[in-house]
Amino acid sequence: MQTPDWIAVDWGTTQLRAWAMKGADVLAEAHSDQGMGKLERHQFEPALLALVDGWLGQGVTPVLACGMVGARQGWQEAPYRRVPCGPVDAADLVQVETNDPRLDVRIVAGLAQPDPADVMRGEEVQIAGFLAQQPEFEGLILLPGTHSKHVWIKGATVTRFSTHMTGELFALLCQHSILRHSVAEGAPQPDAFADGVRVGADGQALATLFSIRASGLVGQADPVAERARLSGLLIGAELADVPAGTPVTVIGSGALTDLYLAAAAQLGLNATAQDGADLVLAGLTQIYLQGAQ
Amino acid sequence: MQTPDWIAVDWGTTQLRAWAMKGADVLAEAHSDQGMGKLERHQFEPALLALVDGWLGQGVTPVLACGMVGARQGWQEAPYRRVPCGPVDAADLVQVETNDPRLDVRIVAGLAQPDPADVMRGEEVQIAGFLAQQPEFEGLILLPGTHSKHVWIKGATVTRFSTHMTGELFALLCQHSILRHSVAEGAPQPDAFADGVRVGADGQALATLFSIRASGLVGQADPVAERARLSGLLIGAELADVPAGTPVTVIGSGALTDLYLAAAAQLGLNATAQDGADLVLAGLTQIYLQGAQ
Repeated sequence: MQTPDWIAVDWGTTQLRAWAMKGADVLAEAHSDQGMGKLERHQFEPALLALVDGWLGQGVTPVLACGMVGARQGWQEAPYRRVPCGPVDAADLVQVETNDPRLDVRIVAGLAQPDPADVMRGEEVQIAGFLAQQPEFEGLILLPGTHSKHVWIKGATVTRFSTHMTGELFALLCQHSILRHSVAEGAPQPDAFADGVRVGADGQALATLFSIRASGLVGQADPVAERARLSGLLIGAELADVPAGTPVTVIGSGALTDLYLAAAAQLGLNATAQDGADLVLAGLTQIYLQGAQ
Repeated sequence: MQTPDWIAVDWGTTQLRAWAMKGADVLAEAHSDQGMGKLERHQFEPALLALVDGWLGQGVTPVLACGMVGARQGWQEAPYRRVPCGPVDAADLVQVETNDPRLDVRIVAGLAQPDPADVMRGEEVQIAGFLAQQPEFEGLILLPGTHSKHVWIKGATVTRFSTHMTGELFALLCQHSILRHSVAEGAPQPDAFADGVRVGADGQALATLFSIRASGLVGQADPVAERARLSGLLIGAELADVPAGTPVTVIGSGALTDLYLAAAAQLGLNATAQDGADLVLAGLTQIYLQGAQ
């Protein structure tokens, strides 16, 4: 294998991924479960070397890392950049001291919004990767998940963003609330989901939660359909304030993305999906190439 | 002690209370932790006798019970009565077979609403007790708690009701969500609470939850104030759809009732509190006296 020009690193809470790069080309890829969540400060460098040692040459190799590695509990805190601003800035990286002189590690800053208070770490690189491919995009980039992110883009700038605890709330309600007796996993239930979306988008998600319990007491209820309705209630509530007609890009793939696309279509949003798998690498590449100019 | 005319029983999920009654007068009171939640079907009669055996005379003593004792998992299921209807009906009680011939146990039916699906068991007796004291009341009776009940009254009839999982959601978020790192118990924080109420009543509770986490990352945040803000968000959301000027009676006492009164005042509702301690007994007495007529 050629010696890489640089190494790209996506270092989240639960996972570590690294790519050996020649410009924008991937020479090799490696990953481990050494996420930020299980590492003490002194364990980050060994965890990284365990993946990339074989890639390093005689000289110094730049390493560009993003994600929770830059959190207060990470390898080194990378202060947030404040919106409105571009999603990333090659001039605003935080260098980390390493013991191994072959490494020159820099961490990408996350984004913060003072009011309403909000933060992100890692998604900003996916957004940069997406905008590298679609620089003219204006509208809403939506990244579903445990904490779903809504990122508003205008003129290649993040104007504002919001985090919605939709995935975490759904899991808490299904597993720990009284509703756990009334829901069950199963095949997709588009009608029940759509009914939930309608009610949730109408601002009635919280007021309607208990009906998932009560419907089985008042009459017959299908726990699989009730789970879909709960999902629809929360996703409908999440999308309630997005104006109809807004161009929306949902970053992701699979069942959850399909649910967001269905809800968005129901609410008159102009939504398409964009597979997120390669966007982190595209964003890191964008930063590397900016910095190399 | 005189032999009672009848025995009143409030049998909830976690507690059992009984009163020896002479008409509307209390001769004696007893309680235990033998709530419905920990009893198998055959254990209800012994749990009751453990409290009331000493009160029973030679003949048969009517026992009037309300609450979760009438649930599907209770002593015997008491089918729901459907709203709109009066809160209770002495002609609509469910008799339970007992081994002890001195007991004549009857269970008060709960209320159900088909759409939106909702149920209550026990609160209907508190409402009957309240209406016995204030028969002209029209408006909203609000019973805060783990599952807060909103009961709309017109012409001494329950026209509709809704259950809000406010208390359960608050506990889940404080104890099991990522927000648990950002909240702490402490002295009342009226300003933070009022801020939460304003945002929650504006339909932004779910969209704002994550700011409780983010505010401590973006700047300084007081976990005690953030907990009050979370409480305000959820209570504000619960009250969002109650029209300004609605007469509201909050049944309860203590800190939680005070929060609801503060939120209601902030939102222009005409709210007063009514101590709920004696309302179950007043409601059961009402049913007994109706039936004795």
